[in-house]
Amino acid sequence: MLYLATYDIERNSLRTKIAKLLESSGLDRIQFSVFVGVLTNSQQIALQKKVGKLFESQENANFMLLLLEQRAFFDSTHVGDRPPDWSYLKGEKDVLIF
Amino acid sequence: MLYLATYDIERNSLRTKIAKLLESSGLDRIQFSVFVGVLTNSQQIALQKKVGKLFESQENANFMLLLLEQRAFFDSTHVGDRPPDWSYLKGEKDVLIF
Repeated sequence: MLYLATYDIERNSLRTKIAKLLESSGLDRIQFSVFVGVLTNSQQIALQKKVGKLFESQENANFMLLLLEQRAFFDSTHVGDRPPDWSYLKGEKDVLIF
Repeated sequence: MLYLATYDIERNSLRTKIAKLLESSGLDRIQFSVFVGVLTNSQQIALQKKVGKLFESQENANFMLLLLEQRAFFDSTHVGDRPPDWSYLKGEKDVLIF
C-alpha cells in the first residue's frame, strides 16, 4: 500500500531520528517533513511501533500515516522551486530523483 | 474533491501568509504545515494561482496539493500527543475539533 507520512515534532533530535527511521523503512522524502512510499501491512505496523517507542515521554510530537491511492499523484499539483519527481510518484519509474 | 496541502517554506512571513491563505480557502490545519479540505475544481485552480503569486521571486518555497480519497482517513494512523479529529476527517461530522 502507498503511504504518505507527515510529522510535527518540536525537538530537533527526535525529528532527525524519525526522518532517519522513515528513510530506513524505505520511504522517500518529498518535503522536509513529508515522506512517501510503499509499505506492507506488517511494515506499517512495525514502523508505527518504532515511532511510538521513540515518542515515549515526548511532548509536541505527532506523526501521521495516510493511505494514498496512486492516482493521487496524477491529479496533484505543485508550486515552487523544487517540484517532486512526479514520474516516480506516479509509479512510472523505480528511482526517485530529488 | 478532498485535498491535502503540504508546504516547505523557508521564510517565516511567507509561511504565515500561505497558512492564512489555506485557512481562508476553507482548508483545515491538521499539522503545522499540513492542511486538509474539500475544494471544487475552480477553487483549487484559484488557490494555486494565489500561491504562485505569493511565491514569485521566492526561493526555498514549495507547496503541494494532493488529491485524497475519503477512505484515506479510514486506514490511516497517528502516533503522538495531539491526534487529528478522525471523525471530521472521515466525513462523519461537519466541524473540526483540534
